[in-house]
Amino acid sequence: MIDLYTWTTPNGRKVSIMLEETGLEYTTHAVDIGNGKQFEPEFLKISPNNRIPAIVDQNGADGPVSVFESGAILIYLAEKTGQFLPASGSARAKALEWLMWQMGGIGPMMGQASHFANSAPEQIPYAIDRYISESARLIGILDKQLANNEFVAGDYSIADMAIYPWVSVGFDIISGAKPDMVGEGTHWRRWLAAMAARPGVEKGMAVPPAQS
Amino acid sequence: MIDLYTWTTPNGRKVSIMLEETGLEYTTHAVDIGNGKQFEPEFLKISPNNRIPAIVDQNGADGPVSVFESGAILIYLAEKTGQFLPASGSARAKALEWLMWQMGGIGPMMGQASHFANSAPEQIPYAIDRYISESARLIGILDKQLANNEFVAGDYSIADMAIYPWVSVGFDIISGAKPDMVGEGTHWRRWLAAMAARPGVEKGMAVPPAQS
Repeated sequence: MIDLYTWTTPNGRKVSIMLEETGLEYTTHAVDIGNGKQFEPEFLKISPNNRIPAIVDQNGADGPVSVFESGAILIYLAEKTGQFLPASGSARAKALEWLMWQMGGIGPMMGQASHFANSAPEQIPYAIDRYISESARLIGILDKQLANNEFVAGDYSIADMAIYPWVSVGFDIISGAKPDMVGEGTHWRRWLAAMAARPGVEKGMAVPPAQS
Repeated sequence: MIDLYTWTTPNGRKVSIMLEETGLEYTTHAVDIGNGKQFEPEFLKISPNNRIPAIVDQNGADGPVSVFESGAILIYLAEKTGQFLPASGSARAKALEWLMWQMGGIGPMMGQASHFANSAPEQIPYAIDRYISESARLIGILDKQLANNEFVAGDYSIADMAIYPWVSVGFDIISGAKPDMVGEGTHWRRWLAAMAARPGVEKGMAVPPAQS
């Protein structure tokens, strides 16, 4: 059994998608980051950087294993199950490089775009444009990659699961603001529809349920 | 033989440190990102997101393997050599989670801090404080982790190699600006000195040489 500590955010949904896709049994613990639950001492023992998601695998190879950071959890679960991450060679390298591209690029940059567009106490045009433009540039790169690959790294992998939750919530806003930067969108639209049609993706995107 | 495409930046230095530490033979190709060399078609074939570092391993498991994204390269080289990343269990999870913490957190946030403090065309106090504060918070988390661990994930690993090039260039600036947020620095100072004393780190930090 795996304990999943998560919330209704793109980083959380990466992991619930993976848990659904692998068929692993898990229990969801909602960590309400709007009410400071990520700072409680019990949670910080698992996730010292006070961020969701985190997991505890009660049946780890050498006893219970806790893991924080969505990208690390995806690799952990892929290696535990032997699914969605090739074991070696160029196919493995490709899945890992696109996973890292999400972790270091599209995640932080779309996060900053959202902050400056929606949450910052003042509207700062330079910062809004900086992050919307960089997000649009990254989506253009994704579109090019999908022109020659059914999924981001060829076969369906943890790289797709990492990228989808961010792009599915942010693409329309960003492509509307920077239509010239994102390409025609032919390839990302095909990929987005293929992702949304997967039962594991649909179920994972609803964990935990949207809060009223 | 490994071809390393890199420049004088923290992300580049992560990989040259790893190549030095593992003892792998490599050839350095300097990609002058100040002069647009990252947009040349030959480089984009290896690194479609036009970023350094990237590698081509001429002796990959299934032929030549190219890898972009520093975090993916570190995992690739660790698995190729069996060094600096435990093969399984909680020790592996720990190294991967702190590697991802660097990729998704301290790298992007210190990068944005540097941009708004040093490169942006206007001084925007809100943005400067946002990223300096977040970088300081992350360094405080690192200091806590190092209070109970000789290296970030216990034994010396690719997580240390990923974090060191960023912290070594940015810590003094950030700790000077936010002394209350970074802890007393006892632990990070001990770790920083231990890292700097490693011959592989010293050599790797000089690849490619600083440009005049």
